[in-house]
Amino acid sequence: MTASDQNGRLLIDLDGVIYQGGRLVPGALDALDWIDRCRLPHLFVTNTTSRPRAALLDKFEKLGFSASVDAVMTPVVAATEWLQMQDLHRVALFVPEATREDFVGFEAIDVEQDTAVDAVVIGDLGQGWSFQLLNRAFRLLMQEPRPQLLALGMTRYWRAADGLQLDVAPFVKALEHAADCEAVIVGKPAAAFFDAALARLGCSAGQAYMIGDDIVGDTGAAQACGIHGIQVKTGKFRDADLGGRIKPDFLIDSIADLPRWWQQHLPQSGQGEGTPQRARD
Amino acid sequence: MTASDQNGRLLIDLDGVIYQGGRLVPGALDALDWIDRCRLPHLFVTNTTSRPRAALLDKFEKLGFSASVDAVMTPVVAATEWLQMQDLHRVALFVPEATREDFVGFEAIDVEQDTAVDAVVIGDLGQGWSFQLLNRAFRLLMQEPRPQLLALGMTRYWRAADGLQLDVAPFVKALEHAADCEAVIVGKPAAAFFDAALARLGCSAGQAYMIGDDIVGDTGAAQACGIHGIQVKTGKFRDADLGGRIKPDFLIDSIADLPRWWQQHLPQSGQGEGTPQRARD
Repeated sequence: MTASDQNGRLLIDLDGVIYQGGRLVPGALDALDWIDRCRLPHLFVTNTTSRPRAALLDKFEKLGFSASVDAVMTPVVAATEWLQMQDLHRVALFVPEATREDFVGFEAIDVEQDTAVDAVVIGDLGQGWSFQLLNRAFRLLMQEPRPQLLALGMTRYWRAADGLQLDVAPFVKALEHAADCEAVIVGKPAAAFFDAALARLGCSAGQAYMIGDDIVGDTGAAQACGIHGIQVKTGKFRDADLGGRIKPDFLIDSIADLPRWWQQHLPQSGQGEGTPQRARD
Repeated sequence: MTASDQNGRLLIDLDGVIYQGGRLVPGALDALDWIDRCRLPHLFVTNTTSRPRAALLDKFEKLGFSASVDAVMTPVVAATEWLQMQDLHRVALFVPEATREDFVGFEAIDVEQDTAVDAVVIGDLGQGWSFQLLNRAFRLLMQEPRPQLLALGMTRYWRAADGLQLDVAPFVKALEHAADCEAVIVGKPAAAFFDAALARLGCSAGQAYMIGDDIVGDTGAAQACGIHGIQVKTGKFRDADLGGRIKPDFLIDSIADLPRWWQQHLPQSGQGEGTPQRARD
């Protein structure tokens, strides 16, 4: 293990790792508390687009922990940074109502009008999708000059209370095919999303550890960027996940086991008490 | 030009070539009349799944021309042939109500139930699509053993009275991505569909000419099978279509120009009067 590896930083998935629906994963609070006490540099990375970042922080508080707004990376945050960088301001938002407030400084156009737009942003609308609405997004994408298609993550489906439910990716694929274009993906598993997270943490991929429950969207995607993948067995994890092509670098039962695991694997980086000792370069 | 090329046969797309919505393309009747008078071997190949084949023939009559039932190839005809060949009988039909009558000899299951099915058949439901319905198709596809996904064509979109409208392909792509499976395509642009059409016409690909308005689904798909692609500028055609990777073999304004074009390019095959002179081998 190199010196830089010792100076570990954490990327933490939320749903399925810290909580499942409205309930904490057992031991998650202790693990988060340990992370804080060690001052272990970390970033929460989530593909949640159903609520604004402020609502996420509120949820944290209700569950008994806190985070600064800068410690949370969502696809919407990544999208707004990307749009600003590209100088695109007129956006058509196909995102949950609650997420709109995070698109500050943009001109959100009425998607019912045939107005020229710079970008079409697609989130997980769930039951909000209708043929008409998807067709509106399509017609906007077919206008000349062609607007940019942005996808808030590429999650294929999730497990709702009554069964599997389509997420954002199938609708993005539908639009890409219909309008013969390629979406910019802002969210896991896109490399650009992880790159932005690493930049925020100020570290190299080799220094970072991604802890997640989604073998494809978390573990595999992080590994593809050179980030270490720590797979937990909570959330959407299924034993069958380990039989596929993606092999996690590390496998732990849940985030509750992270402190012990970290002290074992990166003893210089997380001491469990006070400021972690920095690795000497 | 080889002798066999002279013995030309025609594959004719309907919507956007012969008619647009309920109206004939100007000059289409004269062109069809010319085709009949020459006894030019031809087949109407359409991805229409919004009505049964019998209703198509009725539509022809109302518009002022006629065709035998064997002169019309639709995806439903191809689908039923394929399902029978594969011995698949329990089918979940996501097709327009009117098309169901063409699925004779199959057990159509109630898509609201979690029943095991052999195949999930997707047609152009247009406004009939809702999130719930697409999610139903997805859940059926995720059952074990996995049913086969069948796509009635892979048309991306069409030009409705009020603008472009998503067709079947985007929804098939959404389901393929969500359920991580690959659809069997029965209809344009699948090579199997063109092969079946050539077999029905009893000719080689090099003898056949496909006239269509869809640069991808008609012209490009036919060319990929070795069939000559004649692109018309009616229907969904846009000038920008010519800037892409597909270059039509021939470009004419509309089907009204076909007789003149044919006499110019295949003088032995269509004389414009009586029986066309056959090429001598």
